[in-house]
Amino acid sequence: MTSTSPSGTAAALAACRAASPLVQCITNFVSMDIMANTLLAAGASPAMAHSIAEVEAFVSIASALLINVGTLSDGWVGGMKLGAQRAVELSKPWVLDPVGCGATPYRSLICAEMLQLKPTVVRGNASEIMALAGAAGATTRGVDSTAAATEALAAAKQLAAQHGCVVAVSGAEDLVTDGRRVLRVANGVPMLQQITASGCSGKQASCCALTALIAAFVSQFPQQPLEATAHALSYFGLAAELAVSAGGVKGPGSLRVGLLDQLATMSEAEVLAGARVLE
Amino acid sequence: MTSTSPSGTAAALAACRAASPLVQCITNFVSMDIMANTLLAAGASPAMAHSIAEVEAFVSIASALLINVGTLSDGWVGGMKLGAQRAVELSKPWVLDPVGCGATPYRSLICAEMLQLKPTVVRGNASEIMALAGAAGATTRGVDSTAAATEALAAAKQLAAQHGCVVAVSGAEDLVTDGRRVLRVANGVPMLQQITASGCSGKQASCCALTALIAAFVSQFPQQPLEATAHALSYFGLAAELAVSAGGVKGPGSLRVGLLDQLATMSEAEVLAGARVLE
Amino acid sequence: MTSTSPSGTAAALAACRAASPLVQCITNFVSMDIMANTLLAAGASPAMAHSIAEVEAFVSIASALLINVGTLSDGWVGGMKLGAQRAVELSKPWVLDPVGCGATPYRSLICAEMLQLKPTVVRGNASEIMALAGAAGATTRGVDSTAAATEALAAAKQLAAQHGCVVAVSGAEDLVTDGRRVLRVANGVPMLQQITASGCSGKQASCCALTALIAAFVSQFPQQPLEATAHALSYFGLAAELAVSAGGVKGPGSLRVGLLDQLATMSEAEVLAGARVLE
Repeated sequence: MTSTSPSGTAAALAACRAASPLVQCITNFVSMDIMANTLLAAGASPAMAHSIAEVEAFVSIASALLINVGTLSDGWVGGMKLGAQRAVELSKPWVLDPVGCGATPYRSLICAEMLQLKPTVVRGNASEIMALAGAAGATTRGVDSTAAATEALAAAKQLAAQHGCVVAVSGAEDLVTDGRRVLRVANGVPMLQQITASGCSGKQASCCALTALIAAFVSQFPQQPLEATAHALSYFGLAAELAVSAGGVKGPGSLRVGLLDQLATMSEAEVLAGARVLE
Repeated sequence: MTSTSPSGTAAALAACRAASPLVQCITNFVSMDIMANTLLAAGASPAMAHSIAEVEAFVSIASALLINVGTLSDGWVGGMKLGAQRAVELSKPWVLDPVGCGATPYRSLICAEMLQLKPTVVRGNASEIMALAGAAGATTRGVDSTAAATEALAAAKQLAAQHGCVVAVSGAEDLVTDGRRVLRVANGVPMLQQITASGCSGKQASCCALTALIAAFVSQFPQQPLEATAHALSYFGLAAELAVSAGGVKGPGSLRVGLLDQLATMSEAEVLAGARVLE
Repeated sequence: MTSTSPSGTAAALAACRAASPLVQCITNFVSMDIMANTLLAAGASPAMAHSIAEVEAFVSIASALLINVGTLSDGWVGGMKLGAQRAVELSKPWVLDPVGCGATPYRSLICAEMLQLKPTVVRGNASEIMALAGAAGATTRGVDSTAAATEALAAAKQLAAQHGCVVAVSGAEDLVTDGRRVLRVANGVPMLQQITASGCSGKQASCCALTALIAAFVSQFPQQPLEATAHALSYFGLAAELAVSAGGVKGPGSLRVGLLDQLATMSEAEVLAGARVLE
């Protein structure tokens, strides 16, 4: 059982490190490196396997599945769908990252199809979530967010309620909802937007690595995906804060290095002092 | 309007940061991470999308297109061609990086076919440019350059004149030509050759990330691709110089970190003091 | 001729730096970046080319071939097989990294098929090697090793003897055997397990980058693949040790940076003082 307090974040991180969950990732080419390294730094175990020839077999030994549509192509969609279906059959959590949803009709179509396969959690930026919900007024520009996280809250709540999933909207302050409750996560630093596949605050790139971390955390608390998602967001954002406060961060290159260092070495005391999940 | 003086380089960088152009990248698997992070550090916005199912739709919302043939395969060539054609139709700049041209017959054939699709800029090392021009005497060895940049100047001028494009040859001193004028860029450090997808001086690996930066800069000065290309080369090389002079660079690992930091934080004063584009 | 003493490791590194062998890599998407950068840091020249349209032509100009089955799919298997066959025809060394062998039936099948194509060296963790050998009692969990390296020694010796290859088992202490002799490599730091595609000690991720380094070293000593493999393992592990002892390593992010720096700058004196290959 995990609360939304800092002790809940600490417990979630401790559970991840103790269990070292195998997180299968079907993800884009850009994010694979930092995603695998983020999972390893958090004590989880990454496995990047996407082929229809083995995706179901991999799901059967994994603790959770991450599906990210970043560098989407037809050759990968089959594996994504088989993987998601198998995860649901086995009652394992799977997390959807609808990168660039709304940017092209093809991308929106595939994201909508994936949504029908009952993800446990969806994590996107404001534009992506609004596009996924079919909300009017949002235009996705590449994979950046052109709408503030708060503007997407209504879309997120609707999505979550209709599809029975948790929806997380990354932004200067992250929002996580199951359609009823809304948790806010106030960790992170603006410079994360300048690291692809990591950024999770302010105007941002994609948060691919972060979404994989959500999969790892949710695998440890399958009955509490709302809280587990918020804890993963808090832990990731806090690692960036600690990297900056430790000194040595001069730009996005050194922030990425410091982020991985802090994810791996963050102490319980640091989590208790810094985690900011608010209800 | 941008001149070849340091103030021109500063103006080009300022324009890129202000406009945050969306640069669509169809590129090799090796370079995707550093390419996306290089674009973000320069204030641009990367989008890695290659599938024939959406490549044209993405070009229509992008400011420029980068095509790099690094990890070439038939499955990607279709998307490359559709993307290039659409860019030309929409009068958007597209930049070709003919990685390893000359290394295998297949690679040379595809590069020659891409050249027919009217790139705005071609950026390669001396061997690649000579192979692309069909110049005799050059043998490409993998993706390294075995010929000095100056040796490739004749080939570059011929290519540029015949195909109405700008051709940049990376080397200890970079050369940029439109077939008539020749600009020389004297920024960079030799150690860049030891970072894949970044190196742009001396005997080198590929310059994939740099070529994406050219696409970003050219998108802001579509009437001046010659100057914009030189400014991108100067900015990138200067970032490496500043990383070294800032201290902390002990080898290619820390150079890569420092390079991204400097690309993101470089001030106008630093550009004015350090940019070296010569005519 | 290279011995197992530190002077042998130094000679192997010097040969790699002097010859700058072109190492063709058919590898997974996760490891491409660090693999290419590891080869460059060691003075070798990487070429990532996998397409059946050119894989044979690339082997003909390469000094060695690395095949890693990490992000396996049918679309890549054809190129892997063609490449391996061509390498054998041309008497060039090729090295197999059977990532995740045993994790799924598909993966085990492909690895077994690749083994029939006569690799010069096979490098895996204990679980992978045991699965590849059909040894009972090992269950591969993703790409981590769940069996100690020593437990896999019997399987490694059997594999090596049956297939006429060198087999390396990565672990807290690495083991290298040709079926008769067994070399032990005692370099490395436990934290390497937290960097994907690099880890080679203790409970680990995959060692993809390291296996490419083996290909580079073996290309220089084709008659001594046993010793050359051990030297590559020693050099890589020593680079991690030197990174830690140089200070500045605070976690897996900075270890990766320091590792690349040390690979590029390691002196002969450092090799002589630190290499630990034991017979």
